[in-house]
This record gives sequence, C-alpha cells and structure tokens, in this order.
Amino acid sequence: MEVKENIEHKNNDPADVLGDEDKDSDKAKWYTQTIQQTELADYSPVKGCMVIRPYGYALWENIQRALDKMIKDTGHQNAYFPMFIPESFLTKEKEHVEGFAPECAIVTHGGGKKLEEPLIVRPTSETIINYMFAQWVQSWRDLPLLINQWANVVRWEMRTRLFLRTMEFLWQEGHTAHATSDEAQEEAKKMLEVYRTLAEDWLALPVLTGEKTERERFAGAVQTYCIEALMRDGKALQAGTSHFLGQNFAKAFEIQFQNQEGQLEHAWQTSWGVSTRLVGALVLGHGDDKGLILPPKIAPIQVVIVPIYKQDAEKVTVIETCKKIEKALVEAGVRVKLDDRDNHTPGFKFNHWEQKGVPVRINIGPKDCEKNVVEIAKRHDGTKTRDISQDGIAAYISNLLVEVQQAIYDRALAYRKEMTTQVASYDEFKKLVDKKGGFFEAYFAGSSEDEGKIKEETKATVRCIPFNQNHAEGKCFYTGKATKQKAIFAKAY
Amino acid sequence: MEVKENIEHKNNDPADVLGDEDKDSDKAKWYTQTIQQTELADYSPVKGCMVIRPYGYALWENIQRALDKMIKDTGHQNAYFPMFIPESFLTKEKEHVEGFAPECAIVTHGGGKKLEEPLIVRPTSETIINYMFAQWVQSWRDLPLLINQWANVVRWEMRTRLFLRTMEFLWQEGHTAHATSDEAQEEAKKMLEVYRTLAEDWLALPVLTGEKTERERFAGAVQTYCIEALMRDGKALQAGTSHFLGQNFAKAFEIQFQNQEGQLEHAWQTSWGVSTRLVGALVLGHGDDKGLILPPKIAPIQVVIVPIYKQDAEKVTVIETCKKIEKALVEAGVRVKLDDRDNHTPGFKFNHWEQKGVPVRINIGPKDCEKNVVEIAKRHDGTKTRDISQDGIAAYISNLLVEVQQAIYDRALAYRKEMTTQVASYDEFKKLVDKKGGFFEAYFAGSSEDEGKIKEETKATVRCIPFNQNHAEGKCFYTGKATKQKAIFAKAY
Repeated sequence: MEVKENIEHKNNDPADVLGDEDKDSDKAKWYTQTIQQTELADYSPVKGCMVIRPYGYALWENIQRALDKMIKDTGHQNAYFPMFIPESFLTKEKEHVEGFAPECAIVTHGGGKKLEEPLIVRPTSETIINYMFAQWVQSWRDLPLLINQWANVVRWEMRTRLFLRTMEFLWQEGHTAHATSDEAQEEAKKMLEVYRTLAEDWLALPVLTGEKTERERFAGAVQTYCIEALMRDGKALQAGTSHFLGQNFAKAFEIQFQNQEGQLEHAWQTSWGVSTRLVGALVLGHGDDKGLILPPKIAPIQVVIVPIYKQDAEKVTVIETCKKIEKALVEAGVRVKLDDRDNHTPGFKFNHWEQKGVPVRINIGPKDCEKNVVEIAKRHDGTKTRDISQDGIAAYISNLLVEVQQAIYDRALAYRKEMTTQVASYDEFKKLVDKKGGFFEAYFAGSSEDEGKIKEETKATVRCIPFNQNHAEGKCFYTGKATKQKAIFAKAY
Repeated sequence: MEVKENIEHKNNDPADVLGDEDKDSDKAKWYTQTIQQTELADYSPVKGCMVIRPYGYALWENIQRALDKMIKDTGHQNAYFPMFIPESFLTKEKEHVEGFAPECAIVTHGGGKKLEEPLIVRPTSETIINYMFAQWVQSWRDLPLLINQWANVVRWEMRTRLFLRTMEFLWQEGHTAHATSDEAQEEAKKMLEVYRTLAEDWLALPVLTGEKTERERFAGAVQTYCIEALMRDGKALQAGTSHFLGQNFAKAFEIQFQNQEGQLEHAWQTSWGVSTRLVGALVLGHGDDKGLILPPKIAPIQVVIVPIYKQDAEKVTVIETCKKIEKALVEAGVRVKLDDRDNHTPGFKFNHWEQKGVPVRINIGPKDCEKNVVEIAKRHDGTKTRDISQDGIAAYISNLLVEVQQAIYDRALAYRKEMTTQVASYDEFKKLVDKKGGFFEAYFAGSSEDEGKIKEETKATVRCIPFNQNHAEGKCFYTGKATKQKAIFAKAY
C-alpha cells in the first residue's frame, strides 16, 4: 500500500517535487485535490517540501493564536533558539541520536567554506535548548523553566504527504525543566490537556488521550503521552504528543541545580509539540465529497455573503443590503466575506465557498431585500433556511456559529463511536481492520515484538494505552495472557 | 576598528560562539552586557547565531503584532514557502546570485545520502517565491498578488553582533506582483511608509526615508528605498528596506500574465523586509547608562509595581494595595507586573526594572496606603512624582504611557536634530565624522567609485538620498560639481 511515487513537475525544472504515499487511493486523491483546489497548499519545487498558501496559512494562524494563548496562560514564555545544531550535540543522548540521525539534513558548507563541524538543521530542539538550560539553571529558584518555541523543523521523510508529513514543517515545541519528577509529570499531562482542548474545543476533533507504548515512544523520552484523532477514512492521526523526559537530557547536558538543602540535583524535564499536521487533520477529520468543512472557531472566513440578481436595477439594492449585513457582522467580530465578483454566477460561488469549507453562507436576492430577510445555508449539513430576518442578523449568526461548531464536533464524535470496535480475538481484529477501519479496543499484554508482528500483518499499531484504565481482568487478544490493560489499535497516518 | 574576535566558550565544548565586531569599544561593551544582563538574548554554541530569550522575544512579538496588522490592513496575506532553495534557482537572476551566493549556508546531505543538487538555506526568498508566483499568475485578474512571509533566514556573516547582524535572523519578507510599473512603485513606497509608521509610532525611533544609491542597493532590485535611524552613539542603522524590482525576477522566473487586451506581459514586482535587527535598534536608539529604555507601546512590561515595607504587619496592607492596583491596570489593558519577590530589596528591584527599561514604576509603601496614594517613577527621564491618588489610577497610567511614548520619541528626534550636520566640504566632513558622528547632509554628485573612496577613508557611507529634494543648486562636497541633490552620509552598523 505504501508506494513512494513522485508527482511530475509542472514545468521542466530539474528540481524534484513532493511525493505522496498511497496517492492512488480515492481518499488520497480527494485529499490532495481538495488541498490544491481550495488553495490550502501547493507542491513546491523542493522534494518533500510544500508551500502553505494564504488560506492554509490563515488556518494555521488561527490555530496558533488559540494555542499560543493557552501556552502563555499556563505560565510558559516564548523564545527562539538557533535552527542549526552542532552535529556533536545530537549524539549526547543515546536514544535521541538513534531516533533522529537518519532523518537529518546536514549543512556542510557556509560562506564559501567547508565547515569544521557539520551543522544539523533541527529535527527537534531538545539538544540545543537543553544546552542553554544548563547555562541558565543554577538554583531551585531558577525552576521551573517553562519555554516554548514556534519554529520550522526538518525531518528527511521518504514518504511525504501535504501537511501530514512534510520534510519541513512548522510547529511549536515546549521545553521545560523542573525540580522534581512529580512536577515534570504534572506538566507533561497538563500540556496534553491543553492539546486536547485545542483539538476538541477549537478544531472540533474529539481525541483519545493516553500513553504510547515503548515502541512508539519519542526518542529520548521516559514516557510519551498523545492525543489521537480519527479521520473520516477510518485511519487514526497522532495529533500531538507530550513527553516526560525524566533526567535523560538533564544528565546528557548537565542541567544541575542546587536544591533548597544546598545539594546538586539534575533537573526533571518535559517536551511537547503540535504542528501544521493539524491542518491536515482538519481536512481529513471533517471534509466530505464537496470539500472542506471548517469549524467556525478556526475558519479564516466564517460567513460568506453571496448577492443574487439579474438586472442592474436589482443589483444596486441587493449589493447595498449585502454591504449593510457585512458591516453588521464585522462589527460583531464575525470573519465575513462579501463575494461581489461580477464575473461569476451565484451557483459558481456556492460551489466555490462550499469547497472551501466556509461554515455559513448568506444568500440575498431582490425578494429577500423586499421582505427584509435573507437565506442561510449551513455547510456541514447542507441545510438552508429561508426568511431569516435582517433585523438582529449579527446576533443570529453569532449564535449559529456556536451551534455549528458544536454540531461539527458532535458529528465527529458520533462517527468515532460508530468506528470504535471492541475486539476479543486477533482473528476478529484482522477481519475488521481492513473492512471497517477505525479504532479497535482490545485487552493487550503483548511485547514490543508482538506489536511489531501485528503491524507487519495488519499495518495497524497501538495508538495509545488510554488513561483511566479501570477494567475487570480480561484476556489479551493477541497473547491470551490475563491482563487489566486495554489498548487502542488502528491503522494510522 | 572592525576586529573580528570570538568570545570564549563558557564551557569546554568544541563548538564556536558568536563573535562581535568592535566589541572592545565602551558602547559595544555596554550593548553586549545590557542585552545579556537584561536577558534579551544570549550567545549560542553555534557561531554567529544567538538565542532570543523570553524578554527579547516578547519585544519581537509586540513588533510583529503591530506590523502584521498593518501588513494585513494594506491587503497582504501571509503564507509560507520552503526554507530550502535549489542551488540552481539562485543563479537565475544574475545580480541576485552575485550578492547572495558568498553568504549562503548549503545543505549537501539529507536522510543519510548526498543530495543530487545541493540546497541553499534561504538568505531571502525572491527566487522560490517567484518560482511559485509563475505557477499562480496567468491573467490580470490574478494581480496584484500581495504575499508576506514571517520566517527565519540565514546569511553567513563574518562579523556578527547580537540582534544587529546574526547568521540566522527572524524577519518578514513581503513579495508582490503587479500589472504595471506604477502600481509596483506605489506598493514599494506604501510599504516603506508602513515601516516608517512602525519605527516612529511604535518604536519611537524617528527615521529618514529615502533611496539607496546604486552601490547600496539590494542585489537584483531596480531601486531600494529605506528607513534610516540614528543610534545614541552617533552611528546610523538601516532599519528596513523596500525594493522596486522592476521585471528582473519576473523575467528570470517567467511570471507572465495576459493583460486585459489579451497580450502576455511580465509582471512588475516589489519585495520588502524588516527583521529582529529592530530589537537592536531599540536598545541602541534609546538606552542609557542604566540600561534599556523601552517605548510603552512595545514594552513587554509597561508598568512594574514595587511594594515597600519593613514589618510583616505593613506587608499585608501594602501587598493588598499593590494587588488592587495591579487588578485595576490589568482591567484597563495595561501590561503590568507586581514584583512581590521577598528575597530582594526594593532598591534591588528598582535597579533591576530600570535596567530592563520598564517605562513606568509604581512604588507603594505603608504611608502611601494610609494616604490612598502611590509614587510614580518614569524610566526615560528618571523623575518621580509622589502622592498620585489611587482613585482613577488606571486612567492616570494609561495617559502617562501615551505621554512617555511621545517623550521618548521627542527626545530621539531632538538628538537626531542635534546630530545632523550640514557639511559643505569634504575636509569639514572628515573632521566631524569621527569627532561628532551622526548624520551629515551634503550636496553630492559623486559616482559609486567616489562613494567607495569616501568609505575607505572615513568608514562612512551614503545612508540615503532623502525623498522630496527641492534644494537650490549647490556644489557637490566631494567632486565640486554643481548639483541639486543632497545625500545623507554616516557611519553605520
């Protein structure tokens, strides 16, 4: 299934382009076409890299704004660290280098000369940030150190896909240092909760929260927590991770502090990140045959107004009414666009904005003007309501946007429930994992090796061990061993 | 004067560090120490790169927020393009490659393999962005195309200095395409005006606006416009540039559109940028012996409250009053910090926040509580006012912040006037350029070669040919030729 293939270049430039895996499936085609046609992103002449176009970047900015506020409200401060990391830094934490070295882009020349020590383009910044933490942390009074960075990172991926997995991507990475293990654990879980809030309350994507198995853990972490979303093709998407790093990096980079008793201790740490992958999650998590469906809270355009008229005499009145309503919505803080282009029909505009996922459309024709009403169409369920009064339209729309946000979430949640299957045997699982897809919940007591075998046979992986396990004892669906632990399996992006 | 020297590493790591030019002068020492002590930034283990610490990054975020709004209000949209540029792209515009090739960082290996074509880490993005513009622009209806990008860029600098010139820096770069030369010219000047507004209204830094000479022009531009600020050591700082690119890149990258008459034409273009250098401009443009002086509109902390007490009984009342005032200021939208640390004296705190440049300090002691008043200290002129009523304190402070913003600007403007000298002869200029410093206005009709000789002899360059030249004819101070053109000379960062 996972075939690497390069899409041909649009012109004869020798440069390479982004290659999508699995691109011949219907869903993959729909995904790529929708992103290009709605101008969220485009392929670039650099293999594995994409261009985030204004509509896609506006989505990312809205996600950033919501998350940045939550990051600051929980006491973190933004900072910026060099993109280049000395090659020797990466090797200081053993598991970390094993995980990331194969994916690195390496700068060997600068200013016309060969460098004495090559520089790595950051795949993640634990090493350089913790090097700096070691300079800044001396005493317990310097802790906790709560830092976040918005940045670009590079991982040399063989199989790339717009937004979901690109060589360069944008993200935020939080890095913290604490005086105790408990505090660091609490931090890692607090930030996972921030990610859950971002996914559910802003992106309208219900997520499972839990811990990764050792096999799926971040290279260098003691524990990796995650949020896992379900896409509408039945595949899972890891939407964010938060790591408890223990003292691994503190020992590698000598982050030591004098505690209140005057003794030197190594700090306890976390790191956590989400990326532009979330834009892909929105596309695959809500979209339908017509295109995108964007939740109002992060939609770049929440409401589009389409004027409908035939004669010039009608046009004046209709446009005037449209502008009046546009103004009322702007004043109410609604992100509204009046599509008054005169080289396109209303029908063309309906399709255009439906594909772009604008949550609410207001249609206004000559009769609506006479009757002091408008027609309202909702993107997510395709319903239209006629004769909504123009008086108090701003309040009506503001309420409607809240309703639509909830409805999109509810639908995604209902879909996840429908697509979550309890399985008692591996045979049952193997039958359903291809046929039905979705999340599979099963008693699981297998080893990392067992996980590997399951992945080889089914392409499914453990997405997480959900928090709050309070199950009666059952039988592991793979090994048959008695266990109280359930795991969530799925095929994933 | 311009000696390259590396600062020794703090520990025995083999990695190199940022080397400052001219670092032994008093002003250079003051600059570096102030930035480190106020925790705006720190040296990194990567030579030429710095770490922007939270206090410095908060300044940059405030600059970003103000500028981003102005960029959007003038019709531009943000997007994101790959950081890696195929080496072959850079060579497509002849002057561009000559200007930037010597400064490039080059990725030669990725994913464990040698690349077929090396990738350049963007020093600026004209080439990759215009490659994409060529895909997107077909018809006059696609124009103007008004794009901005917030990004990191890399220029391999030999002489670096915190914020002012670092190998990697953060910036925004605008790139636009238009149907006519006039429209592109108008755009280039409009964005220069945005930069002037940012510098003067937000950073409280008066700037000269004008055009660069051919010698100082951006590589690949037809005309380069600039804003030039004067630092308090008498040196000039180029604070932002806006370029009219003509059709140079449009021809190199084949950006063609069908005009309204159905004919194919090459687009007309601009690009423009400002960077984290502006943080350095704030430090050097306003600071004094005590440290930073930050204009309220972009200060991360606008007001600090320092409680003053001796006995525990006093403490309760004082802290309670401080909290009440903090609350009132937060509600009024003031960025306020209550410094209630109990391991530092008020005197320590006064110095600490003065060095950090916080515009306004509120001191509150037991007697102030009794009398329902506070004491207010202004950072920029060191004045204190006693017995300001606690009633209506939020309105008082809000007005005061506006006054302080204006006063800081006025002082910088007065300084610039004092430091701007009309010179009629080159001899006079040579005497004063070292002794007095500052801007020198002179009739100038010299060639690029003459500029080169002047720079060699005096280290001064033409900062700009100011706009709106309406001078009577005079004699070029260097060549003696008759001319109506005046130029501004200065030694510059």
